[in-house]
Amino acid sequence: MFKEIDSVQNKIIKEVISLNIKKNRDKKGLFLLEGERLVSEAKVEDIEYIVISKSYKGYVPKVNKGYVISDVLFSKICDTINPQGIIAVCKSFDYKIKDIKLENNPFFVMLENVMDPGNMGTIIRTADAAGVDGVILSKGCVDIFNPKVIRSTMGSIFHLPIYRNVELGECIKCLNKKNILTIGAHLKGENTPYNTNLKNGCCVVIGNEANGLSDEISNLISSLVKIPMPGMAESMNAGIAAGILIYEGVRQRLGE
Amino acid sequence: MFKEIDSVQNKIIKEVISLNIKKNRDKKGLFLLEGERLVSEAKVEDIEYIVISKSYKGYVPKVNKGYVISDVLFSKICDTINPQGIIAVCKSFDYKIKDIKLENNPFFVMLENVMDPGNMGTIIRTADAAGVDGVILSKGCVDIFNPKVIRSTMGSIFHLPIYRNVELGECIKCLNKKNILTIGAHLKGENTPYNTNLKNGCCVVIGNEANGLSDEISNLISSLVKIPMPGMAESMNAGIAAGILIYEGVRQRLGE
Repeated sequence: MFKEIDSVQNKIIKEVISLNIKKNRDKKGLFLLEGERLVSEAKVEDIEYIVISKSYKGYVPKVNKGYVISDVLFSKICDTINPQGIIAVCKSFDYKIKDIKLENNPFFVMLENVMDPGNMGTIIRTADAAGVDGVILSKGCVDIFNPKVIRSTMGSIFHLPIYRNVELGECIKCLNKKNILTIGAHLKGENTPYNTNLKNGCCVVIGNEANGLSDEISNLISSLVKIPMPGMAESMNAGIAAGILIYEGVRQRLGE
Repeated sequence: MFKEIDSVQNKIIKEVISLNIKKNRDKKGLFLLEGERLVSEAKVEDIEYIVISKSYKGYVPKVNKGYVISDVLFSKICDTINPQGIIAVCKSFDYKIKDIKLENNPFFVMLENVMDPGNMGTIIRTADAAGVDGVILSKGCVDIFNPKVIRSTMGSIFHLPIYRNVELGECIKCLNKKNILTIGAHLKGENTPYNTNLKNGCCVVIGNEANGLSDEISNLISSLVKIPMPGMAESMNAGIAAGILIYEGVRQRLGE
């Protein structure tokens, strides 16, 4: 049986609330998973403990440590508007860029300073759908353990390697050396995704929502591509641009 | 010179605040445009009046009616976190589905009950970038004059016809009769976007974020397509699915 807690002053409750802040997540190496779907995607051994509301009736992972709190208290500690009634406090994880596998025509997605949690989560979800081999993130990207990112990934956070805090310049040089084509979405790109060969090893690179790719990174990339915009809009949402480029890769790789 | 207002009780301020609610927008036929970029996209004759903060230094449209308020009051009435200092109260507009032009291989996007303001705005922006001829919305879609939708469109709301509150079933029957291919994104689709001909008149149909397309609509559509998902994710964000399908249309239509 799980222990009951009824005070917002309890240290478990305080810890859960504190994990909405990046600094605290980094310090403790923990992050929050909210909702049955996301909790069910985590490995049980990675869950430190769970907190459920009294009326919760869904899936409960077989963990040793768990707490039951009132529905009112639960909705107070939750980031979502209609909480389902389960939160898992989970160990955060890390993939080291030095362990990345560059053989067999890999397909990567690299993000430079993507700041919007919804964009980040959606891009990770799309990369997962596309069967991408890994997502490479610059230091300036939003934290992937931010609850809004986690929610937007719909569980994809657990499905593919995500390399964080990567020195992108060094990484691109290394990819170029290994003949993995780096392709950056850029409004001044001279190629299109459609006349670019994405069938062999390649890495799609997307920049910041407001500023696009930095000059430093643009200069290192093998090919800058512009997504054609025959209409009137001058630019595109970063998540959509990523989706279009990733799926042009999928199309070419499926031989369609 | 514009009139100064210093009370939150002023009827202009009250009207601006009230326009964050759909019911009030519908009743008055007005909506809000926040920020220099969006205000600059509106036709001056469609702007009822503007409200600017005392420290605002950017573009001001040549309108007859305007009000100046303190920066503190401005930030109180604003939906955005870092307001730029200009809001326009603008006449809402309407395109009638009976006026839609079906000649010359048109390219449409149709949305059934897309509820998320960010998705709606992003899809309109992507449709605009792609040069789509019109966006057709079911009654159950989020209001396009919702400030979050407007913001996500980045001005594209003004660039292409948007048909609202459309009876989609009737519309699809009409498109089918005119040989405009209706293509619905569906997890059970038997075709892919890549083996579907989007070069002639066509309409891409996207369903609700959680439930996809309804059975009623799926049954009327000419071709249900599944976006290939070789990875582990089971589904895709509605905005991304729309972007991938719209841009497969762009690719085919550009002959690439």
